[in-house]
Amino acid sequence: MPIEKFTQSLNTDKRLFKADIWNSKAHNLMLLKCGIIERKTAKQIFKYLNEAEKKFNDDKFELDETLEDVHMNIEKYVLEKGGEACGVMHTARSRNDQVVTDTRILTRELANKTIGNLLNLCKAILKKAEEDNKNNIIFPGYTHMQQAMPTLSSHWLLAYFDAFTRDIKRIEDCYKRINLCPLGSAAFAGTSFPIDRKYTAKLLGFDDIIENSLDAVASRDFVAEILSDLAILMSNLSRLSEEIVIFSTSEFGLIEISEKYTTGSSIMPQKRNPDIAELVRGKTGKMYGNLINILTILKALPYSYNRDMQEDKTPLFDSFDEVNACIEITTEMLQNIKLKKKKMNKEIIATDLANLLTTKKIPFRKAYNIVKESIYGNLDLKKYLKKEEISILTPEKCIALRKSRGSANPKEVERMIKDRKQKIKEIEKRQAKRIKKIENGKKLTEEKVLNILSS
Amino acid sequence: MPIEKFTQSLNTDKRLFKADIWNSKAHNLMLLKCGIIERKTAKQIFKYLNEAEKKFNDDKFELDETLEDVHMNIEKYVLEKGGEACGVMHTARSRNDQVVTDTRILTRELANKTIGNLLNLCKAILKKAEEDNKNNIIFPGYTHMQQAMPTLSSHWLLAYFDAFTRDIKRIEDCYKRINLCPLGSAAFAGTSFPIDRKYTAKLLGFDDIIENSLDAVASRDFVAEILSDLAILMSNLSRLSEEIVIFSTSEFGLIEISEKYTTGSSIMPQKRNPDIAELVRGKTGKMYGNLINILTILKALPYSYNRDMQEDKTPLFDSFDEVNACIEITTEMLQNIKLKKKKMNKEIIATDLANLLTTKKIPFRKAYNIVKESIYGNLDLKKYLKKEEISILTPEKCIALRKSRGSANPKEVERMIKDRKQKIKEIEKRQAKRIKKIENGKKLTEEKVLNILSS
Amino acid sequence: MPIEKFTQSLNTDKRLFKADIWNSKAHNLMLLKCGIIERKTAKQIFKYLNEAEKKFNDDKFELDETLEDVHMNIEKYVLEKGGEACGVMHTARSRNDQVVTDTRILTRELANKTIGNLLNLCKAILKKAEEDNKNNIIFPGYTHMQQAMPTLSSHWLLAYFDAFTRDIKRIEDCYKRINLCPLGSAAFAGTSFPIDRKYTAKLLGFDDIIENSLDAVASRDFVAEILSDLAILMSNLSRLSEEIVIFSTSEFGLIEISEKYTTGSSIMPQKRNPDIAELVRGKTGKMYGNLINILTILKALPYSYNRDMQEDKTPLFDSFDEVNACIEITTEMLQNIKLKKKKMNKEIIATDLANLLTTKKIPFRKAYNIVKESIYGNLDLKKYLKKEEISILTPEKCIALRKSRGSANPKEVERMIKDRKQKIKEIEKRQAKRIKKIENGKKLTEEKVLNILSS
Amino acid sequence: MPIEKFTQSLNTDKRLFKADIWNSKAHNLMLLKCGIIERKTAKQIFKYLNEAEKKFNDDKFELDETLEDVHMNIEKYVLEKGGEACGVMHTARSRNDQVVTDTRILTRELANKTIGNLLNLCKAILKKAEEDNKNNIIFPGYTHMQQAMPTLSSHWLLAYFDAFTRDIKRIEDCYKRINLCPLGSAAFAGTSFPIDRKYTAKLLGFDDIIENSLDAVASRDFVAEILSDLAILMSNLSRLSEEIVIFSTSEFGLIEISEKYTTGSSIMPQKRNPDIAELVRGKTGKMYGNLINILTILKALPYSYNRDMQEDKTPLFDSFDEVNACIEITTEMLQNIKLKKKKMNKEIIATDLANLLTTKKIPFRKAYNIVKESIYGNLDLKKYLKKEEISILTPEKCIALRKSRGSANPKEVERMIKDRKQKIKEIEKRQAKRIKKIENGKKLTEEKVLNILSS
Repeated sequence: MPIEKFTQSLNTDKRLFKADIWNSKAHNLMLLKCGIIERKTAKQIFKYLNEAEKKFNDDKFELDETLEDVHMNIEKYVLEKGGEACGVMHTARSRNDQVVTDTRILTRELANKTIGNLLNLCKAILKKAEEDNKNNIIFPGYTHMQQAMPTLSSHWLLAYFDAFTRDIKRIEDCYKRINLCPLGSAAFAGTSFPIDRKYTAKLLGFDDIIENSLDAVASRDFVAEILSDLAILMSNLSRLSEEIVIFSTSEFGLIEISEKYTTGSSIMPQKRNPDIAELVRGKTGKMYGNLINILTILKALPYSYNRDMQEDKTPLFDSFDEVNACIEITTEMLQNIKLKKKKMNKEIIATDLANLLTTKKIPFRKAYNIVKESIYGNLDLKKYLKKEEISILTPEKCIALRKSRGSANPKEVERMIKDRKQKIKEIEKRQAKRIKKIENGKKLTEEKVLNILSS
Repeated sequence: MPIEKFTQSLNTDKRLFKADIWNSKAHNLMLLKCGIIERKTAKQIFKYLNEAEKKFNDDKFELDETLEDVHMNIEKYVLEKGGEACGVMHTARSRNDQVVTDTRILTRELANKTIGNLLNLCKAILKKAEEDNKNNIIFPGYTHMQQAMPTLSSHWLLAYFDAFTRDIKRIEDCYKRINLCPLGSAAFAGTSFPIDRKYTAKLLGFDDIIENSLDAVASRDFVAEILSDLAILMSNLSRLSEEIVIFSTSEFGLIEISEKYTTGSSIMPQKRNPDIAELVRGKTGKMYGNLINILTILKALPYSYNRDMQEDKTPLFDSFDEVNACIEITTEMLQNIKLKKKKMNKEIIATDLANLLTTKKIPFRKAYNIVKESIYGNLDLKKYLKKEEISILTPEKCIALRKSRGSANPKEVERMIKDRKQKIKEIEKRQAKRIKKIENGKKLTEEKVLNILSS
Repeated sequence: MPIEKFTQSLNTDKRLFKADIWNSKAHNLMLLKCGIIERKTAKQIFKYLNEAEKKFNDDKFELDETLEDVHMNIEKYVLEKGGEACGVMHTARSRNDQVVTDTRILTRELANKTIGNLLNLCKAILKKAEEDNKNNIIFPGYTHMQQAMPTLSSHWLLAYFDAFTRDIKRIEDCYKRINLCPLGSAAFAGTSFPIDRKYTAKLLGFDDIIENSLDAVASRDFVAEILSDLAILMSNLSRLSEEIVIFSTSEFGLIEISEKYTTGSSIMPQKRNPDIAELVRGKTGKMYGNLINILTILKALPYSYNRDMQEDKTPLFDSFDEVNACIEITTEMLQNIKLKKKKMNKEIIATDLANLLTTKKIPFRKAYNIVKESIYGNLDLKKYLKKEEISILTPEKCIALRKSRGSANPKEVERMIKDRKQKIKEIEKRQAKRIKKIENGKKLTEEKVLNILSS
Repeated sequence: MPIEKFTQSLNTDKRLFKADIWNSKAHNLMLLKCGIIERKTAKQIFKYLNEAEKKFNDDKFELDETLEDVHMNIEKYVLEKGGEACGVMHTARSRNDQVVTDTRILTRELANKTIGNLLNLCKAILKKAEEDNKNNIIFPGYTHMQQAMPTLSSHWLLAYFDAFTRDIKRIEDCYKRINLCPLGSAAFAGTSFPIDRKYTAKLLGFDDIIENSLDAVASRDFVAEILSDLAILMSNLSRLSEEIVIFSTSEFGLIEISEKYTTGSSIMPQKRNPDIAELVRGKTGKMYGNLINILTILKALPYSYNRDMQEDKTPLFDSFDEVNACIEITTEMLQNIKLKKKKMNKEIIATDLANLLTTKKIPFRKAYNIVKESIYGNLDLKKYLKKEEISILTPEKCIALRKSRGSANPKEVERMIKDRKQKIKEIEKRQAKRIKKIENGKKLTEEKVLNILSS
């Protein structure tokens, strides 16, 4: 096996191409501003960085495996075209800080994409919850997969809404630790050139620099953290998927998935399988695996840069891609399922019966035992309750009686839906702000580059 | 195997005892306030809850395995002593919301403990960094474990300081999702009793309630998140441990661990082994394992409560215990190591030589090649630099020349130390606020209970 | 935190006590046989080893935490009682080889226990399969949790039988790598004393020595392998548990668990929950976590002994304990469930209809499309089949028609049951042989010790 | 996101193409032999299967994403070309059994490749060990990374040899569970067609059938097992890699890697980094992650087929590819490293000094304490030993004195090398036998197909 083939990382690096071009532009704008390189040379560098970028966009940039990575490929391109003088472009920079800067640029982009997708999912859930609540879709709530108490499909949907907004919040928290600029840390010790790291960070749309130069190149806890967030997100998604699979069996009959979102069998003509939910559930494995991957890489890895770190990008990008696909397809599928009313076992009102007994001055634990005895033994409830009191206690009635905040009662659900709509707006506002900051950096960089090129 | 033995969870539950007593006090204070139970009964309940607590503190409360868990043991105690009327104490509550409330109470306590320990570790690091920076401890910086550029031990220490404060921040972010009160969600659907969940939350020192009652009992992403945070923390700690092991070999000779913090061999009389660092490194495995444990439990687990969830507490408490022990012992050990100056390979100044060449109008990439050729080939650097220019470039000089923000230069390190001292203060302030909130809830509960008991 | 508290491992070591005594007896019998120690000293050593063992059995041996581990505790006991001359007992031995020898002794014992438990589980499955097959319990087979084709509960049970016997085979394969003796490797390089490693191995009931002394103390792949085997076993057990949970819902109604093996709710009087199956499913997380634990410990751990390895025993013993409990309780529960006949969806015979059409010279793919069209479209099957042909195709008939080896046909199942009974006998024979070998070593050791003591 | 894009698996399926063609040939040869299809139709099927295969080999077969998987693509090709009558080719078969058969065919091929690569690695190690043993390369042995006792590089190499041959054995054990044929199990219940599963198994080079048809399609423990084996293998490889990284530092200076197998830095001209060893170490993360991936997929997955299982192939093939690359490159690198003699710390002979003291009738523990005191305290060893006795105890002498089986003594190493050469031969013999069996099946299939085509 040729060494180059083993050590190269172009497959994943390809995705860093544009980030790397931006990186080089910002870095050289800073070098120019700080008087470290000359305007003439900068102009040459920008010219060929633009050329390389165009080629890449047109799918014409050929990446050479023997050059190891994307950074060396771009540098070589600029030097071959612009001449040896362009060799200044790597001044006060090392691949160590360069690659992790690129990675952070791409990671924040993917994180924002995931937040956007989660927002869509949450909106779809909210819409369905609102419809279902109006239609008063009552179905059995389960504990231990056994019918427990009557509930509302809208309340069930809102539970997932809340879980997914926590997933958003987690990614937003992590984002604060992602969107920091390591550039200018060089190999790990900083540099003797009088650079301005804050300026580069601004051009690249970062919130700030990650200050200590050793920490900047050696740490990858932001990768482990975002992969944890995605793994947890997928655990939530896998639980929803599992419920969709079970609820759409003919036995449970609580969910109907529209045909387009099911698939058939090669041998059994009658089958309509919930493959999408199954695949999402199955892909949870990959997310957990990718998390263990990065944690294993980091275990006992000495500081500063070691080549092991090259392996951080495969799980990172793979998890984002899979998670995003899973959220998108789940959102679509959810928009195409129907939650159905369901006749429930008659014992499902047992808790409410016990609660009712407590209004007759029977302490709860005793009331509980009475109801239990009436179900499994010989005790007749009519010793304690009038016939009408019992017969009036339908699932609908149980639901209507609920009074506690957050409970499965149509009015409470209605209130929560209204509240969650407000939450969506707040998340959207924060999302817009994050994206704006990146765009501003991008715009500023391109303007300044254009300015120099056209001077 | 007796069923009870298999299904019981008293070993871990024991740690929930006090939280569960507090839980019951707050819940019954609320029931009383909302007119759901009577003052007389409440008084009985509080009397025997206090008695049970005292017995437990005196190690005299006998937990009965056949009663499954700690909640049933306490309820039974109160009912046996206070009479059947006390059976109201479980009104509007289920073990589902009760146990996760207890778990959140204990989790936030352990999280605060971990933050406190990390603070101590950070302070110890900062103190050593300050001393080392004054003493100008220069040693080789490594990439790929090969000597790369000269650096300062103080700068190396600060890199870990920054990593560990990120660990603190991560736990603080998670804390916002931990410190929410599920109580009153009952089995999963809420209750028909006119309870006041916000009031209970306040008595228990929570920031707010976790609203949707299904989400409240079914979700455990807060467990997965904190276990992720602890796993990431341990990955950082394992990296420090690895460096301590390697740096304290006779070959590297960069670190001397005081004898008390090393151990001997049963067969080799001369050995002084860095066992503590090794054990911390090894315990990383458990933290990763515990994370996978909870993620596996949650994978495809249908909502609301399933008995699988009982298994969340073992990894949760175990990770906290191990992490806290690891941080404490590492803090002590760090206070007892000595970082030592080290003569470095002469090539360690190669990058600075290349940088120097760029001041002679040689582009960086060419300068790099010249230095490389001078090391591995026949090229004589004196073609480009005067003898004095070369000989003056000592490791000390290289370090002194560094100008970039965050770099390994004594002045820059001094500035960072000052800044980090300020950061410590801010964290301490937030920590105090969190603890105060819990204490206030506790105090309020006890006052109200006392008030009723003495009326 | 006191260093000793952090570094000690007595909690898990306790379980190695008896193995360590045996280890010391065998080692010193060998030293005596090889002329390395004197008979008189050996006698003293054996006397106090026996005394220590007796104390331990009577729960009277006090382990001193400051002595780190069980080996040092025992050695100290013998030296204090028997005098300084007994200090020869550690000749040609190090804790490095000693502890891994103890660990292997306990591991093989636990492995045999697990095999024994799996045998019991398999026998319980076989017994139930035999009964069900006689009673012709037909129920729906599922793919994608959708009713797919009619099947037999006995065939379903046999599928698990085969999975669990593979689990046995895997452990047996691993056993060959477990039951090898490292003793005499000393720290890692062997020793200058003229010891006889094969003799010690024989006394300790090992199949052979693990030869290379560095490999012997540094390798723990046998731990990782057995933990993999247990994790895989638990994945199988979790699948059975999941099916039991789902099949015992009122919706599916395929399985009835006897009340004793279900548990109730603290708030819902009607509940009978399949907690055992849920707990087993949940405990899968721990097994996966323990596997990741050891793999993480081993990742990038330099040879020979490092203190990290002390951490191998917690996941090792914990996994065995949990797995054994899970198998035992599942066996019991299985003996107390009833599999029930079930009316199936009428489309469940669709595949057999398609197969029937192929007998009319219609190629399978076309036949498949015809049946599909007849279910979801307007096509009338009677265009292709006579009414009687269709109506005769009941689930019972479909099952009776199956001809392929291994298929869900009562006669084929009967043949398989007979065959599996034979398989059980073969496994039992191998199990007996393994246990005999250990007992022989034990007996030989004790005889020789007694011989010396009574001389 | 289009459903087809989400559910399709062509990227990994592509690798199953040839296996699937072979599968279809064998299956239809069997259908013909059993009188289920006609010779004329079979001929058509074989003709277009061959055509499809040729197209695929020429990179001209276009896989249609909307057809989900490779099986449907091939079936469609044959039906379009050969007409509707070829629709019989899926008779008595389902994708459920078909895909797992293909997977097993490819898995055994990859397993044999891995064994072959491990054999090469072992031979390279053995060769180097033999040379080093002749040259008597003495270097320090480490425990806790501290110099412990003098040892031989040949002995160190042999330790890894033994670990890697255990890895081979583990894969061979798993192979027995991989190389079983599920074909003919259809969806999961078998089929009413009078098929001959043993015959198909023979044509496909399997050792036997996997009998129970439900077990055959539902179980994936063979995937989990082989991924465990590869993960364990990588843990061994990561330990070797770690030692290479550390031993090749300028500080340790025990290993010199030839320049070709090191890489440079983009900023530091002097660097020669052991990137290959670092990358191998880093890739361990992926192997652990892939294992967790499949274990997570399998956790609580109900029987028979669920779409989650489609996700088993990505980690399976990825692990094999990475492991094989890692072994190949490590083998090459090992052939290009030089192990170097090393002056050791003078205390490295301490254990041998203690052993020497025992020849003066001093019990080992006392001897140990004397030597310890002589190193760290004031005790003069000359109280117990003559000056000559001490001075003669050089590292070379210590090594020469070792007598125990498996120890680091040149003669013992020589004996072990001879023995390991024999072991290599035995493995090669078993490997040849496995490959022969596959080739025979392939040959038989092709002959019979040709026979029909040319009739």
